[in-house]
Order: sequence, then structure tokens, then C-alpha cells
Amino acid sequence: MTQIAEKAPDLDFETELKDRLISFAKEYFPIYRSITGEGVRESLRLIQRHIPDLKIHEVPSGKECFDWTVPEEWNIKDAYILDPDGNKICDFQKNNLHVVGYSTPIDQEVSLEELEKHLHSLPQQPNAIPYVTSYYAKNWGFCLSQEQRDGLKPGTYKVFIDSEFKQGSLSYGELYLPGKRKEEIFFSTNICHPAMANNETSGPTVLTFLGEFLSGQTDLEYSYRLIFIPETIGAVAYLDEHLDHLQKNVVAGFNVSCAGDERVYSHLHSRAQNTLADKVLSHVLSHTDPNYIRYSFLERGSDERQYCSPGVDLPVAGFTRSKYGEFPEYHTSLDTFDVVSAEGLYGSLEVLKKVVNALEANKTYRVTVKCEPQLGKRGLYPALSTKETKAIVYNMVNCLAYADGTRDLLDIAETIKCPVWELYDLIDDFLKHDLVIEE
Amino acid sequence: MTQIAEKAPDLDFETELKDRLISFAKEYFPIYRSITGEGVRESLRLIQRHIPDLKIHEVPSGKECFDWTVPEEWNIKDAYILDPDGNKICDFQKNNLHVVGYSTPIDQEVSLEELEKHLHSLPQQPNAIPYVTSYYAKNWGFCLSQEQRDGLKPGTYKVFIDSEFKQGSLSYGELYLPGKRKEEIFFSTNICHPAMANNETSGPTVLTFLGEFLSGQTDLEYSYRLIFIPETIGAVAYLDEHLDHLQKNVVAGFNVSCAGDERVYSHLHSRAQNTLADKVLSHVLSHTDPNYIRYSFLERGSDERQYCSPGVDLPVAGFTRSKYGEFPEYHTSLDTFDVVSAEGLYGSLEVLKKVVNALEANKTYRVTVKCEPQLGKRGLYPALSTKETKAIVYNMVNCLAYADGTRDLLDIAETIKCPVWELYDLIDDFLKHDLVIEE
Amino acid sequence: MTQIAEKAPDLDFETELKDRLISFAKEYFPIYRSITGEGVRESLRLIQRHIPDLKIHEVPSGKECFDWTVPEEWNIKDAYILDPDGNKICDFQKNNLHVVGYSTPIDQEVSLEELEKHLHSLPQQPNAIPYVTSYYAKNWGFCLSQEQRDGLKPGTYKVFIDSEFKQGSLSYGELYLPGKRKEEIFFSTNICHPAMANNETSGPTVLTFLGEFLSGQTDLEYSYRLIFIPETIGAVAYLDEHLDHLQKNVVAGFNVSCAGDERVYSHLHSRAQNTLADKVLSHVLSHTDPNYIRYSFLERGSDERQYCSPGVDLPVAGFTRSKYGEFPEYHTSLDTFDVVSAEGLYGSLEVLKKVVNALEANKTYRVTVKCEPQLGKRGLYPALSTKETKAIVYNMVNCLAYADGTRDLLDIAETIKCPVWELYDLIDDFLKHDLVIEE
Repeated sequence: MTQIAEKAPDLDFETELKDRLISFAKEYFPIYRSITGEGVRESLRLIQRHIPDLKIHEVPSGKECFDWTVPEEWNIKDAYILDPDGNKICDFQKNNLHVVGYSTPIDQEVSLEELEKHLHSLPQQPNAIPYVTSYYAKNWGFCLSQEQRDGLKPGTYKVFIDSEFKQGSLSYGELYLPGKRKEEIFFSTNICHPAMANNETSGPTVLTFLGEFLSGQTDLEYSYRLIFIPETIGAVAYLDEHLDHLQKNVVAGFNVSCAGDERVYSHLHSRAQNTLADKVLSHVLSHTDPNYIRYSFLERGSDERQYCSPGVDLPVAGFTRSKYGEFPEYHTSLDTFDVVSAEGLYGSLEVLKKVVNALEANKTYRVTVKCEPQLGKRGLYPALSTKETKAIVYNMVNCLAYADGTRDLLDIAETIKCPVWELYDLIDDFLKHDLVIEE
Repeated sequence: MTQIAEKAPDLDFETELKDRLISFAKEYFPIYRSITGEGVRESLRLIQRHIPDLKIHEVPSGKECFDWTVPEEWNIKDAYILDPDGNKICDFQKNNLHVVGYSTPIDQEVSLEELEKHLHSLPQQPNAIPYVTSYYAKNWGFCLSQEQRDGLKPGTYKVFIDSEFKQGSLSYGELYLPGKRKEEIFFSTNICHPAMANNETSGPTVLTFLGEFLSGQTDLEYSYRLIFIPETIGAVAYLDEHLDHLQKNVVAGFNVSCAGDERVYSHLHSRAQNTLADKVLSHVLSHTDPNYIRYSFLERGSDERQYCSPGVDLPVAGFTRSKYGEFPEYHTSLDTFDVVSAEGLYGSLEVLKKVVNALEANKTYRVTVKCEPQLGKRGLYPALSTKETKAIVYNMVNCLAYADGTRDLLDIAETIKCPVWELYDLIDDFLKHDLVIEE
Repeated sequence: MTQIAEKAPDLDFETELKDRLISFAKEYFPIYRSITGEGVRESLRLIQRHIPDLKIHEVPSGKECFDWTVPEEWNIKDAYILDPDGNKICDFQKNNLHVVGYSTPIDQEVSLEELEKHLHSLPQQPNAIPYVTSYYAKNWGFCLSQEQRDGLKPGTYKVFIDSEFKQGSLSYGELYLPGKRKEEIFFSTNICHPAMANNETSGPTVLTFLGEFLSGQTDLEYSYRLIFIPETIGAVAYLDEHLDHLQKNVVAGFNVSCAGDERVYSHLHSRAQNTLADKVLSHVLSHTDPNYIRYSFLERGSDERQYCSPGVDLPVAGFTRSKYGEFPEYHTSLDTFDVVSAEGLYGSLEVLKKVVNALEANKTYRVTVKCEPQLGKRGLYPALSTKETKAIVYNMVNCLAYADGTRDLLDIAETIKCPVWELYDLIDDFLKHDLVIEE
């Protein structure tokens, strides 16, 4: 894939891509998802429409995965509460955050006092419905805004949840694209969150389009693996099946989450801190937005918790825009398309494409002549001396000065303080003129 | 000694211990000490009353120790000056700092002019009697406050020093407590300073009670060695006899001096800078008082000068509160119990106990399961989610995330930014549930 | 050369040396130099009068040197313009910057419009004649102040350049002084710049007097090599001939340029950043002027570009006062003896002498006794305790504490934060008393 260079911006293509990103996100958003169930499968089929090579896998309920067990499959058709006046409130059909994920079925009349024990709201964000789950302790519950809760009158309420547990399976999607080398670049995102936009409609959206982009490449250097999994148990189940293969082949991986707002870019370091994944992500982000945030592994919270755990030790960094837990709408009904935008999704996709390009190009070169090469006699010096050509000359002579066979292209770019993508054309020129050879 | 955990404070025990510390210090203070002589032996016998296993050793005068020679033993019965009016001044019986340590005997009448050559005072601290010695150049002298000196009238003075040099010995005390491992933790303090409280009544006091504490333990992991020696020549003589043994066995050592005031805690780095002694002491102090002072080895001044010298190279750090030379009362008669307090001594003892506990607990663990363990199914998650239990959960998951078989417990505590003592109970729980194994 | 110690200043010697430096510089300045030709040879013969062991070498035109070819030799006898009124302007005899270096010969009448294409001036510095060359593209041209250019009237101008290209040679000078060891200290400066004082009369001046100083030494530890070469092509040609020898023998090298003003000292780091050359130069400069400037290799611009190129990799750092490109008079007729002074040249020479002394003295010592040596019994303690003697004692005990056989003398000086030259006498004393041995 040495041909993937950063091209001059194609504005029509950019506009169309932003439209497609936000359309996909809005189609994906309302599907009801949990860590298992039909909603997950529907979400994966939607992704598959964009990347037909996506394979959907099922892991049976009850399967032991390291320290965990795949839970029963859970599905839900409807849920609501009828208040003492017969008004339907907390209607799952209107906002699927109203029901606690993995709620047991119920169809019963309860007093307000009893009901209160099963309600969840946020006094600090009185207009927000919180997102609550209870995967491993069987229970039922409803989520609602504090404002709505404060208006509940004493009396008898009917609670109705038409959910079902069964021996079924946990579903996940996987896209594998073989390249020239067996070494893999790995991407992972979560498909278990219901109607929230940044966490987590954005991650599957961005990876779907990254998958589409990669599927269109014909000459990939590395192999690529993208997985779409439920959080935690999905990662554990996936690792249980594929750990040996991943440990042997993955050279850099990225957990992608909360990738849709425009506020900031963030890099959550891997446990090992300085893997190739960290190196390329920090390089790309530092030249995309110098104010990007660096988080330590102590501030983790997504599947890097599994990928970087001792004994697993995959070189996986976390990529987010506003990190989970760090933006006010996180895990509430306020996480909508007021938070996530076409621009925000596009920015994340661009970062991941730059990461891919940088990895594809990240070879080690050695200059073939001793002393500075005479660039003029090869026509490599720009004819005009302008501010722009001065920058090119600066990059040329410095790139040659550090192409000493010990630094890869990312190292050179870091050393000479320029974005690695400014070196792609130069390296091509140097190769054409036999000024450098690949080590 | 895995059972020494930091317990909830026992206030009665604490009050009693503070009383005992200050009582001991006040009994120890007035005994007249120099680098040799009966006062040293009396001091050692006082220590022995608290730690009966203390052995008192004698090194004969004239013994060659590396580049040094053990000097003659020096004893003194009385010393004073009679002024022209027959008033007794500079009375050794009233303040034993009045006589220059190792003064030759004298009984003579001298003019004020002659006397002045043998007087020592501090113009900058006019009310302080300085502490002066002349171990290796034979001389006599008196120390007095500048105020007193300024009042001396011309005339004939009688100077009287009833001291004696003889072929005797240099005395030191040693407590050795064998543990399960031959590797030793080493503590050293000085017993050569006369009536001064911080430098150096505090060091012997704190180490006496640390010796008492360690003597009461039945299951020590490491062996412990505490020595009470005269400064410089004592350390040199001790090293001359024991260097091979110490180099083979000492894994961490601490020179304890000026440990009795409440102003600050200080860590004087070993010459090698990053020994186990430095690591544990800096960890304990940073979590005891974030404003503790770090001194480089260039600012040394006590027996770490010998322990860390090239060819000796023991892993010995210096522990002090206000460091010698850094507090205004240093080496004067102002260094009294206005400087040193029960609270100050107790604080130092607590630090050294924490150091001991941290070393005893400082093993390397490896988590036994891949991916994050499911803590809930083992009942390890706190039932209630409060600020306090959140901190515990934070420590639990981070401790497991970094128990990768490459970090010892101090490394983990440093990495996850918590005091190591907050991990002791967690590690016990993890061991019980087979979640970690010791490497 | 262990006898070269920093002596008490000899003011007469200092005054005379400053006179000789500035006299030499003023004699050297007006000779017309380019990268080849008679002016270079005349300059080398002037240097040779001060250091008779200097050898002058010739490299024939057309010789292939790595990626470069030695150009034809170029000489010039005269050059000027006659304006429409017959006034002689841009007279090479009055200021040799008026002609573009390597101009082709011409004797022709041209219109002002045509002439303008061959004129060079600096609108931002209207009273300065710029320094312009065209070594590798054949052309002719004149340089003049913007003020003068603005006054040119329309009309016919006669341009005259009496220059000549021929198959000749490139000249350079080399001084080699063998020491006890085959390892070499290397110095390089440029002799291709015409009438400019800082860049580059100062470099040849300072190295000439360093060569004189070294020639007077009878007991050099290292061998020394000083070369006086035209920039870029001279360095390339020299490396082409001597690379193997230099790579085997040079342990530290210095490219000296712009070494004559009094504004600042600068250290341009080698590409490898931490060579012995960088270590000694940064040590000397930090103790000469704590405000000296550190430049990274990215800010290079002189022959370190060749010496440090990949595959050449010599340990060469750059030494300058105000660095090329960083002072306003750079590469203009304003770079005169208003910029360069006797004081400035002398400061640079002193720095380089200190560098030489530090390298000569930079051995690794090990203390011979365990524990602190007793300095008093050897008479090494100063009798009086003053501020000055305290500093000496501080250096003595610290030098002994770090003379552990792993640190060379520069390491010790850096560790104990004193100029290495304060340790020379101490080390001599320690050697006399067998307190240290050389490793």
C-alpha cells in the first residue's frame, strides 16, 4: 500500500464521505443493543452492508472464557410503566435507555414506594435519562430523568418488561484483510451500547468506514483485522479464542471508542506505554492537533483493559475524541447527535487513515552515499526558493541526515519534527534516485 | 513478618510510646559521650536495658582500620575555668559542651590573652555554646557563648581539665535479629555526641525503639542488623571488621541521624542514588509528607560517607528530619528538647516501621488469570460504592493490572500512585483467592 | 601534557596574545578567498608563518569525492562596473564582496535592465553588500548595497570581470601533531570566505593560535589534527581521502566557525548528540558562561553536516560564538572588526585550550583505600578554613567519593558540579600520595 499518500484534498469526496458517515450513524443509533441479542446481530448486518467481507461469529452461552462465562442471550420486545392515571411512561419504544439492560421480565402492579427501588435517575443532570445495566446480578429496573421522577404521584403502578433469557450466543463481527506481511494491525470497537451517539455509535461508524477504505486497497503491506464486539465479555471471549494468533501477529492495535465529537482528540496509552501503536498514534495526533490529550493507562476504561492485561500484553492503545467518562453527556440520553457530528466522525476517520498510512510507510532507510548528497545535480532542489520550498529542503536534508539505518520513518519524522506524511514523496524521490535503500 | 500490617491507630499505645520515647531521650541526653570512653559504654548499657540482645563490642586503641587508626581512649572527670575573681565558669558539670572533645589535661594559670587562643564561641549565635572536638590534633580548649566571652575581664585565669588518654578501646553496640532470609536490612546511628538532642540523642532513641519493635516480631522475612557507633572512626572500624559480610548480605541500609524534630522529613540519597534503600525510603516519605526534602549524596555528612565510599558501596541511604547542618541549633547548646519532641521522635519511628513493613512485603507477584479477573463472583467487590470503596476498587484493579511478574510491590505502588501499605490487605485477598502467585 | 594546568593569569602574556590575535586577523581578512584559487593558498601561507609544521595539500580539479566533484580552480584579478557617466562602481579592489564568487569572465556593455538581472542586494539591510556565490551554476554577478543600487541611472553600463577557470586544484592546510596515543583530537575550520570577520576570519585565526599553542607542547597525550579547508567541498574531499583513518582514530572533533565576537558562546551538538566532543565542550562552556547557547544538530550549517553524516559518523561538535545565520551582520559587508574583537577571539582560544586540557586530563581514577581517606595525616587539608579552602575541601572529598573507577574526570566534575580544571591539582596530589590510581 505504498501508494496511499496524503493527496490534495478532494472537497467533493470529503463532503460525500461526511454525509455517508452521519447517515450511517443515524441508521445505527436507534437499534436496541446489549451485550447479546438480536439487536447486536441487526447492528452487525448493517455494518456488513458496507463491508461485505465482515464475518459474523457466535460464541455460545455458558462458554468459559478465561475467568468469565458467556452469559445467557437476552432479548427484549417491549417495556413501560403505567402510572396511577394509566399514562404510559418510561416507554422503551420511545427511548430504549428507559429499561435497565439485562432486566428480568416482569408484569406486575407495585406501589410507588416499591417502584422507587427499581428506578435510576441523575439528580445532578435532572433532564437526562441515565444508561444502566445489570449483566451479572439478575434484577429489573427503569431509568428516567430526575425531573420526571420528581413528578411521580403516590399510587399503584404497573410495570411491564417483556424480556427473555435463553441459551443462545454472543455475537461479534470480524473483518480480516490479508496484506503482504502476516503481521497485523488490529482495531476494535464496541457494539453493545444502545441509543447513545458518542459512546457508542461513533466507534462502529468510524471503523465501518475504515474497513471500507481498507477493503478498497489492493496492495496492503500489513494485514488488517477489525473487530466489532460487546465490551468486556466480548473482548474476553475473543481473546480466549484468538490469543496465540494475536500475540504472534499483532504489531499495533487500537481500541476505538467515543470517536464522534469535535471537542478534542485523545490518546490513551497502552500498559507498556511505548508500543508501536502508541508511537504512531501520538505522532499522528501531535501533528493533527497539538492540544490533543494524553491519558495514562491508569485512566483506562474500555477494552484496552483486556488487551493490555498481564499475560495478554497486546500492543493496543486507546483512541478517542472526548474520552468516556470525561464529557458531561457520557452514559446518558444527552449523548445524541448534539454531541456527535459528521465533522467529528470524519476527523476520527482521517486520523485512523493517517495511522494506517504511517504504519504502511514506516520502513527503515539508509542513505547510500557518504557526506551530504549533491541534490542539485539530480534536480531535487526546488527551482524557486519560497517559504514552502524551504520547508521541503529542510525536510529533504534532514531526512537524509537521519536515514542512517537505525531509525524508521516515524523516528526520523519525530527527530526532525515534521509530520511523517511530509516525507512520503521525498522518500519516493530518494528511492528513484538510489539515494536511500530500504534496510 | 507478613502479619505486620498497618493497623487502625491505637491511641493509648501511641500515647504510651511517645512518653517512653521522650523519657528515654531525656535519660540518654546528659550522659557525656565522645568517640571513646566510659560515657559511650554507659550510653550503650542504657540502650541494652531496652533491647537486651544488644551486644557491646570493643575495638582496641591502635588498631589499623583501612586508612585510619583507632585513637587512644579518652575519659574526663571534670573541667572548668576560674576567672580572675575566682568564679567558676565553663563548668563541665553544668554543660558538658564547655570542654573541647578530646582535650588534653591541663591545670595551669594563664593570661586572658593566652586563654583566648583556646576559646570557641559563635559571634552569629551569641547565646549558644558551640560543640567542638579535636580528635586527631592534640590540644585543649573551652567552648562558651559569645555573650559570656565578651564579659571576660583581663587578668589571670586558672584552667583545669581532668582528662586522661590511655590504650583502651572504642565501644559500639550491635543488635542482630535473624529472619527467614540471610539478606539483611541494616540501620546505623551515632553514639559519640554529648548533650545535644537532635544531633544526636534522637538517632539512638529511635533505633532503640525500632530494635525493641523488631525484637518483638516472630516471623521476620529479612534479617536485621542495627549498630550504635561513634561517627566516622566507628563506622570505619566496623566496616574494617565486617565489610565482606555486609557486602554479601545487606540489601538495604539506613543511616539515622537528627530524627527528633517536627519540622520536616529528609532523604539523603545513597551514592548510587537508586538502591532499594532509596526506593523504599522515598516511597514511604512521599506518602508520609509530600513536602519531604530530597538531598543528593553531595550534601552528605554522616556515616553514609563511609558506607557508600567506592569499594564499600553498601546500599545505604540517609534518613533525617531536619538534616545536620540545616537547622540553626545544629552543633550548639541550643539543640535541646526545645528542638526535639516526643511527636518528632514518634514520627521518625513510624517512618522506619513503615520502611520495614514495606521491605518485608516487597515481593513480586504475577496474576494467575488472563484478562481482568471477575472480582464480583469472588465477593471482592465492595457491596457499597462510596468514595472510600471506589479507592479500594481503583487499587484492586490497578494492582492486578500491574502484577505482571516484573514489578515488585513497591514498583506497583509507585506506578499506581498509592501508598504500598494500602496494598497489603488486597494482596492477602488475592493470594487467598489464587488470583496472584508470588514469583 | 599533564603539565598544562590552568595557571594564575599572566596579564602581560594575555595582552600580547590578544594583540597578536587581532593583528593576524586583520592581515588575514583582506586576502581574497573562494573555494579554490591563489587567495586560498596565500591565506594558508600566512597561517604557515605561525605554525610552520602546517602542510599545504592540493586536490586536483575533477576528482570524484563521494557524491561530489572537485570544481575547476577559479582565480580573479579584477572586477568592476562603469556606470553611464564612466564612474567605477562595485570595484573588487575596494571590497571583494562586490563580485559573485565563481563569476564567469565578462567584458561587455549592458543596459541597466540587463544588468539588474545580475545584481544582488539586501532590501532589509540597505547599507550592506551581501556575500553571494555561484559555485555549481556558471553565471556572473555583482553585489552592492541596496542604497547604491537604488541610485543607478538608466543607461549603458560596462561590466568587467577578469576571472579565469582552469584545471587546477583545491588547496587545504593540515597540521598534525603526534602525541603519546594514536587517538586524535580533530579541529576543522573554513578558509573559503572573503572579506568577512566573524564568518570566516575568526575560525582560521583561533585555530592558527591553537595550533601554535599545541606545537609548543612537548608531552601531548593525544595526537592532534587541525585542518583549514574550504567549506563543504573541502570537507567532502578531505573525508574522501581520510575517512578510514579518521573513523579509526578521532575520539573528539570540533568544527570552529564564527568564533570572534563577544556576544555569546554556542555549542552545536553532533548528530549523535552525546559524543566525547559534546561532553567536553558543554562542560567547558557551562563553566565559562552559564548562558551559552545549545543548538541541536537540526540547526547545523557548517562542515559538521559532512562530519556527522550517516556512514561518516565522526564525533564532531560545532563551536561558535554568535552562530552563522544568527547574527545580523552574517554574510554581509557589515561582518567586520566592529563585530570581531581581540577579546572575542581570545575568549574562543581560551575555550579551546580548556577543551584540550580537559581531554588531556580526562582519565579514569580509582581510589585506593576503602572508606574516606584520612586527608589530615597526609597534610592535604588546608591549614586555614576560609571560603576558598572550603571549596577545595568540598572538591577533594567529592572527587575521592566519585573516583570509583567507573567515571572519567569529566564525569566526576559534572557529578560534583565543579569545573574540571579545579580537579587537576587535586588529582596530582592524590597520585603523589597514592590515594588514587589510573584505571
